[in-house]
Amino acid sequence: MTAPVRCVLLSSTLDLAGLFGPVLAGIADAVEAVPHPAPEPETVRLALAWFPPADAFARYPDLRAVCSIAAGVDSLLACPGLPAGVPVVRVVDPEQALAMSCFVLWHVLGHLRRFRTYAENQARALWRPLGQRAAGEVTVGLLGYGRMGARVAADLAALGFPVLAWSRSPRAPEAGVDLLSGESGLADLLPRTDVLVNLLPLTPQTRGILNAGLFARLKPGATLVQVGRGDHLVEGDLLAALDGGRLAGAALDVFATEPLPPAHPFWRHPKIVVTPHEACDASPQAVAAMLCATAQAISAGLPVPNAVDVARGY
Amino acid sequence: MTAPVRCVLLSSTLDLAGLFGPVLAGIADAVEAVPHPAPEPETVRLALAWFPPADAFARYPDLRAVCSIAAGVDSLLACPGLPAGVPVVRVVDPEQALAMSCFVLWHVLGHLRRFRTYAENQARALWRPLGQRAAGEVTVGLLGYGRMGARVAADLAALGFPVLAWSRSPRAPEAGVDLLSGESGLADLLPRTDVLVNLLPLTPQTRGILNAGLFARLKPGATLVQVGRGDHLVEGDLLAALDGGRLAGAALDVFATEPLPPAHPFWRHPKIVVTPHEACDASPQAVAAMLCATAQAISAGLPVPNAVDVARGY
Repeated sequence: MTAPVRCVLLSSTLDLAGLFGPVLAGIADAVEAVPHPAPEPETVRLALAWFPPADAFARYPDLRAVCSIAAGVDSLLACPGLPAGVPVVRVVDPEQALAMSCFVLWHVLGHLRRFRTYAENQARALWRPLGQRAAGEVTVGLLGYGRMGARVAADLAALGFPVLAWSRSPRAPEAGVDLLSGESGLADLLPRTDVLVNLLPLTPQTRGILNAGLFARLKPGATLVQVGRGDHLVEGDLLAALDGGRLAGAALDVFATEPLPPAHPFWRHPKIVVTPHEACDASPQAVAAMLCATAQAISAGLPVPNAVDVARGY
Repeated sequence: MTAPVRCVLLSSTLDLAGLFGPVLAGIADAVEAVPHPAPEPETVRLALAWFPPADAFARYPDLRAVCSIAAGVDSLLACPGLPAGVPVVRVVDPEQALAMSCFVLWHVLGHLRRFRTYAENQARALWRPLGQRAAGEVTVGLLGYGRMGARVAADLAALGFPVLAWSRSPRAPEAGVDLLSGESGLADLLPRTDVLVNLLPLTPQTRGILNAGLFARLKPGATLVQVGRGDHLVEGDLLAALDGGRLAGAALDVFATEPLPPAHPFWRHPKIVVTPHEACDASPQAVAAMLCATAQAISAGLPVPNAVDVARGY
């Protein structure tokens, strides 16, 4: 029987032992979770990390993989102490992609059917039919077309929404989804988009991509669904685009500072819907499954699955 | 060339000529629309009707079909002057079924992801993650499984919701949908249902079906999506079930009296979402297509398509 792989928990923002304790107990045969600073650090082969302390990795000279607790790895790659050459692993969870899709669908359907206006009318006891738009009349533009983007795109297309999806590299088109790439693809997507959904990974290339210049190229009156990372968005530019009428609304789930401070203008803006970074969490079960698969590969001397391209950033 | 079939417009509540004028003009070669009371009434073969005046049909002795402007025909069947033996035709429109599905999905997804609670928290600038439920944890019970119910069920099942569908007659099960029928089927469905969606036709058997007795059999804390007919619901029983905590919420699109009177308690109830009977309209194009197909069958002496079973009521 193979000895369990020792895995240190590294986070400056979350209590990983508290969050994942029950599922880690269930995989103790394969993964031995230890708090930081771990004794016998030279025997630690694996780290589970989220905003890891800058100097934490230095203690562990023989790491074989660093796992994120999420689909995104930006907080790991941004850590100056991340050892070069060690694979960085992300969670890949179909249930999480489905949760993201349900979250995005609610916002897109609400825009299509004008449920905000219905609510405003209800508050005034006002019976006012608004007329109907068919899904085919509302084009959804997706920024980012990874595992989650593909699920979101497929579910939207199945309901009749025209879907434009923008990804870094060209791909073969899929049913009902128009795949675009590069600067020319973005130039094609933005003026045709009624609802812009940001699902990009956070990289140096995508930081601040949701800015005044991009908003000005969208179809006038478009709405934004921001489910990427807070640092994709230039907050002041969004407020200006909403107040100037260029954008009709925004649903924001991620923020540069989380929790969003109580005094932040986003909370009370009438055109903004705030949710507390909860569009989709990887389940503890999916995190445990990733750790097991990673530990198994380490023990067998095989490449770890779902490692990201560190140079690319996702 | 066949002469156009003369079609009288009969409604005590709507201006059918105003609503359908443009599309009727486009099919004038096949259907000659005439206002009531029409001259030469013995040459009128077709009626387009919605809450027709009680005595209107008496004027037209040679009607071959009466067409509804909607999927439901209850306002036609309830007309005491409706001539016996004349086929009653309903709109069958896949686009309308899709619109209904989008409308229901928004309500079901909102319940799943607790967007009402997020909105309440946003109003207080309160960052409070609520935890996630997977779609698989929220069972949707559909009352009614016709063309619209089948589309709604399929779209919900594709997103991972367990779907129970109740119809009058037993049918073969479909993927992801558990079909139930009869009183025993209803007894099976109600206690398992988190979101109850009413898509039934209005018949003497279904009038008042949404009552205290039914609410008491639902899973405690369930919510109601009422998109059938207003007369399915016993309004006082709904208010009691909401105020007593038996039901957590209700989305109502149809009402016994429409427009819903400004003083009605539904407007301001914190657990009720009111929309103005707009879950899905048949498009004017679909109505025109139905009239053309009906006129063509009449001219050819063939049975008209999409005639309802008058005895059954739908």
